Amino acid sequence: MPMFLAVDAGGTSSRAVSLDASGRVYGYGRAGTGNPTAAGIAGAVAAIGLAAEHALGGVKSEGPVSAVIAMAGEQTEAFRDQLSVRLNGLGVRRISLQPDLLGIFHSGTHEREGYALIAGTGSVSARVRNGCLDRVVGGRGWLLGDAGSGFWIGRRVARAVISALEDHGPSTALTGLVLRAVEIEPPASAEDQVRALRQLVSLTYAQPPVRLAELAPLAFRAHQDPVARAILVAASAALADLLAVVQVPELTGPVVVGGSVVVHGMLAAPPDLRRLLTPPAGNATVIPVPDGVVGAAVLALREAGVDVDGELFEKVRASIRARPAPSSAGATAAGG
Amino acid sequence: MPMFLAVDAGGTSSRAVSLDASGRVYGYGRAGTGNPTAAGIAGAVAAIGLAAEHALGGVKSEGPVSAVIAMAGEQTEAFRDQLSVRLNGLGVRRISLQPDLLGIFHSGTHEREGYALIAGTGSVSARVRNGCLDRVVGGRGWLLGDAGSGFWIGRRVARAVISALEDHGPSTALTGLVLRAVEIEPPASAEDQVRALRQLVSLTYAQPPVRLAELAPLAFRAHQDPVARAILVAASAALADLLAVVQVPELTGPVVVGGSVVVHGMLAAPPDLRRLLTPPAGNATVIPVPDGVVGAAVLALREAGVDVDGELFEKVRASIRARPAPSSAGATAAGG
Repeated sequence: MPMFLAVDAGGTSSRAVSLDASGRVYGYGRAGTGNPTAAGIAGAVAAIGLAAEHALGGVKSEGPVSAVIAMAGEQTEAFRDQLSVRLNGLGVRRISLQPDLLGIFHSGTHEREGYALIAGTGSVSARVRNGCLDRVVGGRGWLLGDAGSGFWIGRRVARAVISALEDHGPSTALTGLVLRAVEIEPPASAEDQVRALRQLVSLTYAQPPVRLAELAPLAFRAHQDPVARAILVAASAALADLLAVVQVPELTGPVVVGGSVVVHGMLAAPPDLRRLLTPPAGNATVIPVPDGVVGAAVLALREAGVDVDGELFEKVRASIRARPAPSSAGATAAGG
Repeated sequence: MPMFLAVDAGGTSSRAVSLDASGRVYGYGRAGTGNPTAAGIAGAVAAIGLAAEHALGGVKSEGPVSAVIAMAGEQTEAFRDQLSVRLNGLGVRRISLQPDLLGIFHSGTHEREGYALIAGTGSVSARVRNGCLDRVVGGRGWLLGDAGSGFWIGRRVARAVISALEDHGPSTALTGLVLRAVEIEPPASAEDQVRALRQLVSLTYAQPPVRLAELAPLAFRAHQDPVARAILVAASAALADLLAVVQVPELTGPVVVGGSVVVHGMLAAPPDLRRLLTPPAGNATVIPVPDGVVGAAVLALREAGVDVDGELFEKVRASIRARPAPSSAGATAAGG
């Protein structure tokens, strides 16, 4: 039976599975970021290769393996070439690079029409028609187009803490959380606030700006704090706006949402907060997904001519989601 | 008669004048940025040194020269040491570094109480009491606290152009201005917009983020365009908010405003726009100033015990403002 490799090469980690055309999963793998912008070409190829190697670990394929890699951005020739060499060494003969938006969309539904919204470090929304991207808005990175993203939230978290330390904004539970996260001693007195403030400002400018996104999870942790909650509500509204740009009345499929903000905000949050954070999407069903690996598998099967209907989709989804929590190093064998 | 050197060491350029205790000006100088964060310590010392050398060019001082340098940020020992060596070589024996906020404030008034607001690349406001800074808010740089600043405006200009090129936001006169400014070929067709959009995004990420501030003047140039005007109105409101934080009812002095945004927006703009952009400041008088060099001179005289009353202030101000437009290289002798 032909074997498939599906990879979600994300900005934080890469996840891979091997499966056959019946939707049976053979192995899983996980490694660091597979994004060449974040990790460099060699680093991204190494991470995707490692995750793929683990996923294909126990597999005896009778024929060549076909792979779909779902990932953000446009890829260079150099990246494609090096990735081919690495995956060819694992028996992969056909490699298709697909947009992360399609990986997310097809992780939530077997339907071919609808919308995808990713809120990770950045944010982007898309209309999907006939299984392909019909219109994409956002995704211009932290500096130019990030409404509701992790960077957007993290920057507001940092600013709220600075305002509080300046006695200019309201005091907030975020202050303690942020100072602890960045290992700055909390102020022992009102005068000592100036020292903490200066340290926080210096530290923020000493690192790449995009790392402010790492503060976003603290807003979810402090969601009962009014300042944190206001940031989250504003993020949700910004994401709803981003989605509204691609929505058209005649296309009524589901809205599949993913990315780290969604995972923290909608999948892990308590129900009341989850309701608050779910971007209003009119009458459409909103489906949050933890990553794009199921969608990469759906795309791999469809590229081989397999008809992925609702039943097969559910089988693929359940098999992949049933995997044990991965060890940080990576491989978890699912049987052979 | 003792001689004084006054320097406004700004983020874009450094301006220097030499004057005596009667307010008579002897020489002017101008050079590049004197900000160590922007130019490095050696670059900043070289620029301040060059401007000072030109200003002191034709001066025969009978005694040691006392200098006040108005500049942003806190300065390191290394900077102070190198600056001392350079200025000592010009006959300067006493150097006092003062906050740019005080340079701006004392450039607009001889009074000792009031408010200062700077909107340059970043933005900051302060309450001034007894000639000193009593409370400062903002000034955390482009990433953390820049409401209404040149970076804030420039980033919104870039985003508006990207939205227009994406057919997501309204079309705007800013598109042509921005593409011309960054030397990207304007799109020849609707399809060609994607090419221009990608070039603009790539170029923005290829440069230091703070350079987005260079797009701010285009918003003033296109102030009749509704998109540009909305950005400017929002900037003015943000600056008014920043000012409101430091305002207290019992302190009713003037509001002196400076920085490149103010110079472009309030000093150069047509009267209707100028009214629109002047931050509402309650009943206080708003005094826009082009730079902080008059204030540096006032501070230098006061540090030497000279009583700078309204009359002397006006004389100093008029003498300095009467200087001929400086050549780009620097020196313009005013007599000796």
